[in-house]
Amino acid sequence: MKLSDIYEPVREDLVKVEDNLKSTSRVDFYWLSELLEYGLKGGGKRLRPILALLSGKFYDYSMERLLPLATAVELLHLATLVHDDTIDNSSVRWGRPTINKLWGTEQAVLLGDYLFAKAGELTATTENIRVIKGLSQTLMIISSGEIAQAKSAFNLEQTRQQYLQRISSKTASLFVLATESGAVLSQAPEESIEILREYGHNLGIAFQIVDDILDFTGTEEEMGKPVGSDLSQGTPTLPAMLLLERYPEENPVKRLFQNGDKEENIKQAIEQVCNSSIIQECYDLASDYSKKACRNLKLLPDNSSRQALMNLADYIITRRR
Amino acid sequence: MKLSDIYEPVREDLVKVEDNLKSTSRVDFYWLSELLEYGLKGGGKRLRPILALLSGKFYDYSMERLLPLATAVELLHLATLVHDDTIDNSSVRWGRPTINKLWGTEQAVLLGDYLFAKAGELTATTENIRVIKGLSQTLMIISSGEIAQAKSAFNLEQTRQQYLQRISSKTASLFVLATESGAVLSQAPEESIEILREYGHNLGIAFQIVDDILDFTGTEEEMGKPVGSDLSQGTPTLPAMLLLERYPEENPVKRLFQNGDKEENIKQAIEQVCNSSIIQECYDLASDYSKKACRNLKLLPDNSSRQALMNLADYIITRRR
Repeated sequence: MKLSDIYEPVREDLVKVEDNLKSTSRVDFYWLSELLEYGLKGGGKRLRPILALLSGKFYDYSMERLLPLATAVELLHLATLVHDDTIDNSSVRWGRPTINKLWGTEQAVLLGDYLFAKAGELTATTENIRVIKGLSQTLMIISSGEIAQAKSAFNLEQTRQQYLQRISSKTASLFVLATESGAVLSQAPEESIEILREYGHNLGIAFQIVDDILDFTGTEEEMGKPVGSDLSQGTPTLPAMLLLERYPEENPVKRLFQNGDKEENIKQAIEQVCNSSIIQECYDLASDYSKKACRNLKLLPDNSSRQALMNLADYIITRRR
Repeated sequence: MKLSDIYEPVREDLVKVEDNLKSTSRVDFYWLSELLEYGLKGGGKRLRPILALLSGKFYDYSMERLLPLATAVELLHLATLVHDDTIDNSSVRWGRPTINKLWGTEQAVLLGDYLFAKAGELTATTENIRVIKGLSQTLMIISSGEIAQAKSAFNLEQTRQQYLQRISSKTASLFVLATESGAVLSQAPEESIEILREYGHNLGIAFQIVDDILDFTGTEEEMGKPVGSDLSQGTPTLPAMLLLERYPEENPVKRLFQNGDKEENIKQAIEQVCNSSIIQECYDLASDYSKKACRNLKLLPDNSSRQALMNLADYIITRRR
């Protein structure tokens, strides 16, 4: 199923989110306007707004509050990408040069700050303190998770538990913000909020595991960025960890993390991972989380949003980018 | 008058702000805890919390809301400094190594993000949407102002108007957030909020002009960072602008901005500025703003906070660091 078929129930809302994003870049200061336009266009899938919108459609919702939320979660996401690319010194995302590549660290750090702030301003318009606090807490989780990741870069002694913790902070937290806040804004009962929270968490974990798989199996063209990028940053993702487990004595990830040749060892790691059952094992784990995500959805009111959330859980696993 | 004498009316509250800042660094993740402890100690004057507290003491206030605000404005300030030092590649602040110097760009960018988020979370506890929105809008103003400053670095064609606009974004906006939000949280009538807003704006402008003077007249020991730092970043502050105006044909600022020797030209610029009436002229302008700041304070209820705000306006001009 194509993503665009899945989000059918919120297609029109999503157009409004796009409009909101566009109007974010309409500011008096022409240069900031250009920066924003470039930064907000990108090639993202708008998954987080889709999640916020779908999760907000079960109870008593008002688009006046859901739309700013849906826009804000995307802005927060984009802000973290701008900062990530800057600190990783990445040159390419979505098949085009990154902000830091085009305009340098200074502009990129400040643009990220501006986007965080804009996300905060929009969220404030929901006038819901729980949602507002959630946005800030999510950024605390994401940034402290990244601090941990940076601190343990090129460290071979990382456990699967630490990996799950890391992707929970880095990715699932924002999925949770989207689904939980959508539910909160639509006056969902606490049990339903919890179901959508859980959905967001498990979907986020599944999504990131697949992302980490695609960093091995994808092509640069499909991904819009170089493959093996996590390895080159010294971040052992699940496929790399499984390789380390299988060949503890001698393997390309170990050589890479111990200062071996970068290009050659990344190439070898990708080859070894792809020519083994590691990929299938990773997909199995992602599928487990995807199923877990849907486990309690049937307790929610039966509507097109519920079906879309189910379909999204399948899509997450089968996507190629 | 010493600053510590001025803030007497809020001395005990300020101790609680310090405690709040300390408890911000008490997190489970030991490394983040260390980073935060270092980042939050610093050597700042806690001026922004003082402003928030004093401004919040005129009407019906609750410390339960004022204290998180006062802590949040300091966190926002510290976050912007962490990012500033990172993008300016500064090595020293408050007489000690910067976060980026000690732990690199990556950790510094992420720590700044965490601090922004923590400021947002604390502000949310005030449960006041106007104040919450104000925090985000202030960060939008600050970061877009810095984007403009970075864009026009080493540009000799900058007007005094642009300078005032720049320091309004960079510094006065946060002063305004502190004074306005303090007033809003204490149920001040709109006219009083406006008076405290104006006070914050004009005080902020005066403060930054003096900061820019001290970057020429101070010593590294007093300032806790190298003098001439704005010039070395290609930012023409008021003293530099006046020098350019006086000697349009040939002067060290022009040579510096046109790729001349950095150290030598900064040294000469400082000498020329200090041996002229430029410093006095800058102080005159700062004094004008300081007086303007106090202009309408007499319309507020007569209490010790009002007197403290008056004294603060004097202190701002006479301070040596």
